[in-house]
Amino acid sequence: MGAVDELLARHRAGLAGPSSRFDAVDTPRPRLKLAVLTCMDARIKLFDVLGLRHGDVHILRNAGGLATDDAMRSLLLSQHSLGTREIMVIQHTDCGLHRLRDADLAGRIEATTGHRVAFEFGGFDDVDDSVRSSVGRLRSAPGLVGPRDAIRGFVYDVSAGTLHEVE
Amino acid sequence: MGAVDELLARHRAGLAGPSSRFDAVDTPRPRLKLAVLTCMDARIKLFDVLGLRHGDVHILRNAGGLATDDAMRSLLLSQHSLGTREIMVIQHTDCGLHRLRDADLAGRIEATTGHRVAFEFGGFDDVDDSVRSSVGRLRSAPGLVGPRDAIRGFVYDVSAGTLHEVE
Repeated sequence: MGAVDELLARHRAGLAGPSSRFDAVDTPRPRLKLAVLTCMDARIKLFDVLGLRHGDVHILRNAGGLATDDAMRSLLLSQHSLGTREIMVIQHTDCGLHRLRDADLAGRIEATTGHRVAFEFGGFDDVDDSVRSSVGRLRSAPGLVGPRDAIRGFVYDVSAGTLHEVE
Repeated sequence: MGAVDELLARHRAGLAGPSSRFDAVDTPRPRLKLAVLTCMDARIKLFDVLGLRHGDVHILRNAGGLATDDAMRSLLLSQHSLGTREIMVIQHTDCGLHRLRDADLAGRIEATTGHRVAFEFGGFDDVDDSVRSSVGRLRSAPGLVGPRDAIRGFVYDVSAGTLHEVE
């Protein structure tokens, strides 16, 4: 059985279970008017890290938690269609992008698949600097609303489970 | 107090609380070798929907759960640096992209901020078709590994809490 089938079985078991783990929310507009941009990393259980309730925030996740063009697309929609006003960027320790070099990953992809892909993967040497870079990009991005200090950056420690703010 | 401060207070309360809500996982490689691509929507509590455990899967989220270039960047890293092999695309009912027209949103952004942005936001008229389109793009994407049927698409019903697979 593949991983998807395993998770579909868990999904059905959850639906059939006695606990009411599903709180219906009847609006797509996030209650806290906040969008959180973080990494895809499997160790960031964001609802627990931030004590989120169903319907509280938009959650954007990509490799690194970087302020990419696609994150901008999502944030513009989040703010102008769905009413969010604050943005929280959370990158983390032990990220797969730490010290990653584009040429190394592209070489690995070519060796495995025969395809040469041209991507800037977004590797970085210092996670605090990477957070500052993403926050800076969002603060100067045309089309986003709100004061600069409504966009804040953090690093999540995946070993300790703690957050620290990047000034 | 802003929304970020509210969540930082919840984070601190969680750390101080009696329950052990944090399970340390010492590898960035997802245990189930699966990446899940879904929407940023505030009503998708993915850990509960799929019965996820800490460290199980990569989670990618953007507006719509679309297979964008940035999702491709993340998936290439997920597969070739961190060992995932299956991909699950989950879009959902009542999405902010449903029936969205680029010109309407761009007009709203310009009216609010004075900036004219040029984005394809990814609006769609039928969510099943949108899932098929994203799954199709990933199945034909150069650089991804694994058989075509290791990439599967679903729609999550945000009212009922149920998933259905798109064939």
